[in-house]
Amino acid sequence: MDCSDFNITVVGLGLIGGSLAMAISKKIKTKQLWGVDIDRDALDLAMASGIINKGFTDSKEPLQESDLVFVCIYPKAAVKFIRENMRHFKTGAIVTDVTGLKGLIFREISPILRDDIDFIGGHPMAGNEFQGIQFASEKIFKGADYIMTPSAKSKRANVSLLKDLLFKIGFANVVEMGPEQHDDMVAFTSHLPHIMALSLVLNPMIENTSIYTGGSFRDVTRVARINGDLWTELLLENASYVVKHLDIFLSNLQEFKKAILGNDSVSLRELFSKAQKLKEELDLNADSPGKFKKQGLSGVYQARHN
Amino acid sequence: MDCSDFNITVVGLGLIGGSLAMAISKKIKTKQLWGVDIDRDALDLAMASGIINKGFTDSKEPLQESDLVFVCIYPKAAVKFIRENMRHFKTGAIVTDVTGLKGLIFREISPILRDDIDFIGGHPMAGNEFQGIQFASEKIFKGADYIMTPSAKSKRANVSLLKDLLFKIGFANVVEMGPEQHDDMVAFTSHLPHIMALSLVLNPMIENTSIYTGGSFRDVTRVARINGDLWTELLLENASYVVKHLDIFLSNLQEFKKAILGNDSVSLRELFSKAQKLKEELDLNADSPGKFKKQGLSGVYQARHN
Repeated sequence: MDCSDFNITVVGLGLIGGSLAMAISKKIKTKQLWGVDIDRDALDLAMASGIINKGFTDSKEPLQESDLVFVCIYPKAAVKFIRENMRHFKTGAIVTDVTGLKGLIFREISPILRDDIDFIGGHPMAGNEFQGIQFASEKIFKGADYIMTPSAKSKRANVSLLKDLLFKIGFANVVEMGPEQHDDMVAFTSHLPHIMALSLVLNPMIENTSIYTGGSFRDVTRVARINGDLWTELLLENASYVVKHLDIFLSNLQEFKKAILGNDSVSLRELFSKAQKLKEELDLNADSPGKFKKQGLSGVYQARHN
Repeated sequence: MDCSDFNITVVGLGLIGGSLAMAISKKIKTKQLWGVDIDRDALDLAMASGIINKGFTDSKEPLQESDLVFVCIYPKAAVKFIRENMRHFKTGAIVTDVTGLKGLIFREISPILRDDIDFIGGHPMAGNEFQGIQFASEKIFKGADYIMTPSAKSKRANVSLLKDLLFKIGFANVVEMGPEQHDDMVAFTSHLPHIMALSLVLNPMIENTSIYTGGSFRDVTRVARINGDLWTELLLENASYVVKHLDIFLSNLQEFKKAILGNDSVSLRELFSKAQKLKEELDLNADSPGKFKKQGLSGVYQARHN
């Protein structure tokens, strides 16, 4: 079973939705590939560049004929969209999303989900700091991870069909986990690092000094350019896990401060070696440490200042 | 005036010293290029690979004949070396260092500096997370910044000679500033980001979960592998500036925590937009924002998860 007799609809042709449509149009055999967006220009651009067969501002028509639907809009909007279109989905359709919060979607959708619809939460660990279909590229998925949060009700055949499609469009790992486990993990691996980047640049020194930065500073601040609408949702909807990991981080920083103020080289070295061990463990357990190189970081060693 | 009639000695053939000797041997015309190290093997490797003319474990002989000396060892060791070798330096010699702390060196060396020696502090904003001459490469300097902290006594001719050499070996910017201004800046741009990386990985989640990381997490944790000896010195010797910037960072994190706990999207957006403005200012004022691309970060957008 594959998608060759499927109509696929991508809802929301932004960076991820546009890239997804581009990847599917290039690598997956389907019947029809449709796009839904409130922005006519995005649909026109997608059609002009041949990544969708047809674009719709009204979702009803394409959804009624779609066997697989990717909802690629913000978390709360995705919940709203799926709820409002519940009656439009085709019987037996697979509906999935790409939002960075899986608990919210799961809690909101499960109670209202039709029995003949298979909702499988998804989160591509891919993207960049840009927005909009004009930055879309199927390359952003190459070698990336995809977290999938199927429900107990999800059909295994549907899960494997979706996995198969994701591997074909370039993902290196497709991992299943629970929605809560996912939200706990991304609070630590993504939400906190973004708060760190923002908190670092919120320093008056930037205004009154010309700063000569090394690699470590560029690394941390790269993601300080964020999409405020999306990130307000992500941080507030994932508040409990974000604050949990923020508190762990805060107490670690206090440990460093205490050691530095106390001129305590022994405690400092203990913190260093504990961190080294965990970092090594992280690199070992990492789904694909090879990515460090794949992503060309070896090229970044150049002119690094550590 | 150039270095063609100079004997140059590099003290400490580690990553920086080794790379410096390699770059000078390839790109600068000199009389002799010597290396000093306590590690005979490092000297032998440097000679075998033809990056120095001769290696010495005893510094006296080469220093007496050297017109330019690069001291490429840890801050306190550099102070100790320059103090103990003060009587050995050749009259009129230019002595410089490459340590990440300029206030310490300046305070310790100034009072004991011979009038016929020109000490010019230096800090190449280059390197990588490796140690030792076996990782040496002149490429690490390409496009990097070099901070120079000449004293009021420094001869301009010597400063320009050193600048000229640094440009020839690949540095894109050579900037003069005061030792204190330098230490304040690196506390913010390097020391704090390293503390952040270490504090992030000090999280039990790493031990009991398999983590699927995106680009933002890899960025921040890349530098969590550090040289404990060096970093104990850097953080403790630069304690006041490090704690100053750590405190600013801590209070920003508390602002985020407060906004998240209070489900306060208004404050969150204010923090976002303030940070965006500063980040843009930073990128504009950055000595060479082009570096972001030069360093191949555009390649890293691939499979980014923000």
